[in-house]
Amino acid sequence: MKKLIAISIATAALVVVACRTNLRQHSTGESVKGLMQARGLTEADVNAALKTYVPPGKQDSFLMFASGGHSGDVIVIGVPSMRILKYIAVFTPEPWQGYGYDDDTKKVLEEGSPKGATLTWGDVHHPALSQTNGEYDGQYLFVNDKANARVAVISLKDFNTHQIVHSGLIAADHGGTFVTPDTEYVMEPAQYAAPLGGGYSPLNTYQQKYRGAVIFWKFDRAKGLIDKSKSFAIELPPYGQDLSNSGKLASDGYAFINSFNTEMATGGTLEGKPAMESGASQNDMDYLHVINWKKAAELANSKSTVIQGMRVIPQQTAIEEGLLYFIPEPKSPHGVDVTPDGKYICVSGKLDTHETIYSFAKIKSLIDSKAFVGKDRYGVPILPFKESLHGQVEIGLGPLHTQFDGHGFAYTSLFIESKVAKWSFNDMKVVEKIPVHYNVGHLCIPGSDTEHPYGKYLVSLDKWSLDRFKNVGPLLPQNEQLIDIAGEKMQLLYDMPLGLGEPHYAEMIPAEKINALPFYKTGTNQVSNERDRFAIGSEKEARIERRPDGVHIYMTAIRSHYVPDQIVVKQGDVVHIHVTSLEQTQDATHGLAIDGYNVNLSLEPGKTNNVTFVAARAGTFPFYCTEFCSALHLEMAGYLLVEPKGGVARGGM
Amino acid sequence: MKKLIAISIATAALVVVACRTNLRQHSTGESVKGLMQARGLTEADVNAALKTYVPPGKQDSFLMFASGGHSGDVIVIGVPSMRILKYIAVFTPEPWQGYGYDDDTKKVLEEGSPKGATLTWGDVHHPALSQTNGEYDGQYLFVNDKANARVAVISLKDFNTHQIVHSGLIAADHGGTFVTPDTEYVMEPAQYAAPLGGGYSPLNTYQQKYRGAVIFWKFDRAKGLIDKSKSFAIELPPYGQDLSNSGKLASDGYAFINSFNTEMATGGTLEGKPAMESGASQNDMDYLHVINWKKAAELANSKSTVIQGMRVIPQQTAIEEGLLYFIPEPKSPHGVDVTPDGKYICVSGKLDTHETIYSFAKIKSLIDSKAFVGKDRYGVPILPFKESLHGQVEIGLGPLHTQFDGHGFAYTSLFIESKVAKWSFNDMKVVEKIPVHYNVGHLCIPGSDTEHPYGKYLVSLDKWSLDRFKNVGPLLPQNEQLIDIAGEKMQLLYDMPLGLGEPHYAEMIPAEKINALPFYKTGTNQVSNERDRFAIGSEKEARIERRPDGVHIYMTAIRSHYVPDQIVVKQGDVVHIHVTSLEQTQDATHGLAIDGYNVNLSLEPGKTNNVTFVAARAGTFPFYCTEFCSALHLEMAGYLLVEPKGGVARGGM
Repeated sequence: MKKLIAISIATAALVVVACRTNLRQHSTGESVKGLMQARGLTEADVNAALKTYVPPGKQDSFLMFASGGHSGDVIVIGVPSMRILKYIAVFTPEPWQGYGYDDDTKKVLEEGSPKGATLTWGDVHHPALSQTNGEYDGQYLFVNDKANARVAVISLKDFNTHQIVHSGLIAADHGGTFVTPDTEYVMEPAQYAAPLGGGYSPLNTYQQKYRGAVIFWKFDRAKGLIDKSKSFAIELPPYGQDLSNSGKLASDGYAFINSFNTEMATGGTLEGKPAMESGASQNDMDYLHVINWKKAAELANSKSTVIQGMRVIPQQTAIEEGLLYFIPEPKSPHGVDVTPDGKYICVSGKLDTHETIYSFAKIKSLIDSKAFVGKDRYGVPILPFKESLHGQVEIGLGPLHTQFDGHGFAYTSLFIESKVAKWSFNDMKVVEKIPVHYNVGHLCIPGSDTEHPYGKYLVSLDKWSLDRFKNVGPLLPQNEQLIDIAGEKMQLLYDMPLGLGEPHYAEMIPAEKINALPFYKTGTNQVSNERDRFAIGSEKEARIERRPDGVHIYMTAIRSHYVPDQIVVKQGDVVHIHVTSLEQTQDATHGLAIDGYNVNLSLEPGKTNNVTFVAARAGTFPFYCTEFCSALHLEMAGYLLVEPKGGVARGGM
Repeated sequence: MKKLIAISIATAALVVVACRTNLRQHSTGESVKGLMQARGLTEADVNAALKTYVPPGKQDSFLMFASGGHSGDVIVIGVPSMRILKYIAVFTPEPWQGYGYDDDTKKVLEEGSPKGATLTWGDVHHPALSQTNGEYDGQYLFVNDKANARVAVISLKDFNTHQIVHSGLIAADHGGTFVTPDTEYVMEPAQYAAPLGGGYSPLNTYQQKYRGAVIFWKFDRAKGLIDKSKSFAIELPPYGQDLSNSGKLASDGYAFINSFNTEMATGGTLEGKPAMESGASQNDMDYLHVINWKKAAELANSKSTVIQGMRVIPQQTAIEEGLLYFIPEPKSPHGVDVTPDGKYICVSGKLDTHETIYSFAKIKSLIDSKAFVGKDRYGVPILPFKESLHGQVEIGLGPLHTQFDGHGFAYTSLFIESKVAKWSFNDMKVVEKIPVHYNVGHLCIPGSDTEHPYGKYLVSLDKWSLDRFKNVGPLLPQNEQLIDIAGEKMQLLYDMPLGLGEPHYAEMIPAEKINALPFYKTGTNQVSNERDRFAIGSEKEARIERRPDGVHIYMTAIRSHYVPDQIVVKQGDVVHIHVTSLEQTQDATHGLAIDGYNVNLSLEPGKTNNVTFVAARAGTFPFYCTEFCSALHLEMAGYLLVEPKGGVARGGM
């Protein structure tokens, strides 16, 4: 660290006392020293406060997109203030956004569910920002749902979920999503093996019938959607595929996936067999999967079979065509992270005390010379461990994930030690460890997944918070800790509680790279981004039409009234409300809630929103605007009257 | 303000430069001046940063409970750091908490829905902390759902929703919840009038058939639940009842409710009639409702009729028994706030430029002497306006809500001006206004609703945030602004974005008053707080039982395995999983997610959780722990196998 002539805060206070003058106190209040005393702040606290505080009216310099875990959403966090700017609903309906409450977003959720099921949650693990030429482009965000093996596409123009895809091929994923350097593909590897395509097979057929796979979802950037017809998968052994990463630059065209259950343990605790936690921890080595996805993409048409509409390259074909290789990796590996230059692949073995760094050049050379040390039981060629290595770093207990700062340093989370280890690529040695609180999982450095990390900050995504925050009941918040990595020493700046959701991974991008819409062009459908077919442009077009498929209400909303504000239907009618916000002022959002009918729409300026429901219950149902839009917001209301069948005067609620 | 000898920050820097020494920089980093320059911070910013920053490992001194609006939840915010500690799911299912995904919390939501409907959201407006003798006791929190006229009870022992009540009497509420000084009752006034009991009646019968009402829900503190059988309501004219407040001390036994639509406007925009926003804004005066709830409670048995199971005192009876009086109030009133001593009632007229302060002593005297100036069209006695007044304050444009600091000052939000006005009870004059950003609704000062406010902080709950934060799409966060009110001048300290939910009101309590459970006693049901009837105490008790009502799985969860971890059922089976967490370590939370079956449980330490589903689809479905609980968390998994009907080898997903 530079030894500047600048002086420290407490020292400043002392100097001030020594040089006491009759200078008057500033109108905003107390001295630094006085505040430090009053609030028990140390010098380090003052330093951290001034590094994280974003004054009213100023904006954060980075946006972090964190997965919400089993809350099923994505959390957008401003850095360095660590303020939550938005929750984006993805797999779970969320009424403030109206997501999953109108016809179009309900359809996104339905089309993203397996046949015969209606899923209303997901387990979001790894968000991936879209990249152009190996750099974040600020256009899209992809996330996976571990529980149900799905992938969602979020546009960063409107921060809405536009698509959820469910392959029907695999039963649970984990290692995705990660994108290839130009977002050609979005990777989704399976985690818990199952018969491909979703069939039933007893557990004693595990080795024969159960399989893993990795799906490469083709992203159509022009449409902003995944194209299943151009996507493909590669069948893999049932080894519990875990985290994945895409090669880049030196390793462009390749992908890397860990595995942690080459033992193929399946538990059986009720019968006294070992649980998977011990059954899957027997081998000293599992297998790092090395996959040539560019070649696989070329063969996806000619060498695949189709399962559940997905082109799948069989395992045997992948072996024969040189798409798949294994390298031993110690022990119960978790994170696999490719360095920004693409030259090295860093693997963390949960039960190992090393970080293991593979050299892609060596791997490629071993593949080219077919220098295999054998095959696994499914015939996959195995490369020699030591010859593939760049080296190993003595890292500590429970290494999980690694991030890169772009300045020659890597940072690995140590779950068991509850620390982050900073280590150097120069001498392959740990240079510093910093405690985190507690039980860290992933780390996030802006741009670490790209060819050019931004460095500066590291966020430690800690799983337990214990005593860090006021106890708010048995379900505690997570703790996201902001660490300054710009200086010689790491400095803990901020503890951020996360009181909804359990982030697994996050990606961080300079705020300036995001350019979201301020509002919609009048009549826009939020899912299609196009003019809604039921949009109207003025109150004159508002109307109620009876048609064979039900009653259609073409409605407008503008401060602070609806047209129409009285709707009369008959019990049993199918009611279609098509409401267009005529606002074109940023933040002039309205809502539409109907008493008792579970109807709630969020009407951002310009949006057209559609909702369909059956007026099954007769009665008098007020509707109103749920967003405080003007001084006369409470008066933005109307009535839905449902006439009872047979004209009975009193309907039941 | 005291002119202390303490010096300001920038001045300190100058002095430091003047007295430059060779003191070394502190190891944590840069000087205050250097950081100010580097980050563009003003002196006021530094002051605010040091007043709000809560260092890692330290805790906030206050907890604010904010309503989530149409997100349907409650947000717990630490003050002064303005960090979100928790979202409490109330009316909307939320999978991170497992709320609405297990049998017991599903039942809470179902029992809180109208018959024949399944509601999966609510519009939370006004949280009310339970009080003992006019002080927050930190035990319970009540909230309303405006959209569907419901009230929920949250325990602050576990921060869970334990009950939702739906009267079936009214169609929408707004003015609740507020509690009486010993939490005898929780108030829920109607907002948009409708036929009492939920019947159908055409809008041209509005004046004859539509009614307002106020429900006094009886709270059984020993059970921690509302007791509908001991609750009662009072029928009110269809005047659009708005905010309410309970009397205290001088006015104990009384309640006050605003109204804003004495015009009884019902819109008709499609036919060219005026919208309610203008129709309801014609009268210069609406009516402040003065209600003698203690007397009403005494008459609730003898003088009521029962509608939808609720004892309702008819309007005419309320008039005859002296339970209900009106006082004119200007104009389109919104907030009604009783001062901590109970002597004054402060009313904000949205379209008035005054804050109108009524004297309870004068009101009581006028009632006692029957000094009425007339009756409204329904026969309710009207007290004279001027004679009821303590006075009026020239306040500004769009006054909405008032809070009290306990030191003789009141603070009123001005929606149209986007300011907070501080005014004095001494001279009934505004002493200061501070701009807020933007469109403020409610304000929150800790303890303002009690007999002894804590003062110190004020939070301005602003509806628009516009340019205050990086744009994250057309749906913007709200802005909660923290203002220091401890000094002579108000000081804006912090802009807090709220990226999920739209807070309406909030209450704030010293953190030390909350004493939540660290974890559950083994086998606790989170809704009943008692031992779950399906709880087991050890892995030895784990078992699978076939019974006439389905397959019962008695399961345990502890780091990092389930017993059993293999479950085989037949297609069509009703599956009941009863899982007990054997953990007794704080924060050792597990989850249970089943692929494709929309099952997701949150298993805090000691909890027993039950879920029932039909195994409708054959196949191989992994289940696993959704909370990162140990280094071998990924291995905490098992399989649900659903054998196809007829033994077909391949079931569909």
